[in-house]
Amino acid sequence: MNAQELFDRCLEGDVLAQDCPSRAILAHVTGRWGTLVMVALSKGTHRFSELKRRIGGVSERMLAQTLQQLEGDGLVLRQAHQVVPPHVDYSLTPMGREVADRVVALTGFIETHLAEMRQAKVAAE
Amino acid sequence: MNAQELFDRCLEGDVLAQDCPSRAILAHVTGRWGTLVMVALSKGTHRFSELKRRIGGVSERMLAQTLQQLEGDGLVLRQAHQVVPPHVDYSLTPMGREVADRVVALTGFIETHLAEMRQAKVAAE
Repeated sequence: MNAQELFDRCLEGDVLAQDCPSRAILAHVTGRWGTLVMVALSKGTHRFSELKRRIGGVSERMLAQTLQQLEGDGLVLRQAHQVVPPHVDYSLTPMGREVADRVVALTGFIETHLAEMRQAKVAAE
Repeated sequence: MNAQELFDRCLEGDVLAQDCPSRAILAHVTGRWGTLVMVALSKGTHRFSELKRRIGGVSERMLAQTLQQLEGDGLVLRQAHQVVPPHVDYSLTPMGREVADRVVALTGFIETHLAEMRQAKVAAE
């Protein structure tokens, strides 16, 4: 089955289906750094260096790769400004904002309920 | 800084902070298989073999490891039934259901908008 056939079969995606292209987008959005880039960009437009500072532990290489993937999925907008010194801004597209809202709902819940989840861990050990 | 100090500093988690324990839970929930296990369990209690069949491409080893992590976070409940033949059921805890609702909101959005995201990808190439 080629990519187009897969795509046609999967206009409404099914992430549980092994070959569904939605899996790749989901992997970008829920990848280790993808989630955190979406959270950071949900707070507004950032330059590359600001994102790197905001997202603890990310390397330049992983940040660049993650931004490129999310840009390819139509979720992140990269804008180069030809000024002196030149700089590049990253922001969410309208669809990216929709996705980010849902990512933030998930991460926010985990942040808020961290203590309970940690207690569950202690109880299980 | 030891685990307890980190925990105290981070009762309200911040996923953007490198050392926050919320990152580990987020990694379990948004990991490649964690997301899909949460989606599958959102539809109800499953046996191990049912989960393996439902989640295309997952290996027994990865499924077992993912379930164990989510159980450790207090999101998944494992129940062994001492009947003949014995079997084990997996379901979501009340907190797991809250998290799964948010995971499903995210994956559902991606599934529904897959065509637009794929068009964005084609346009970017």
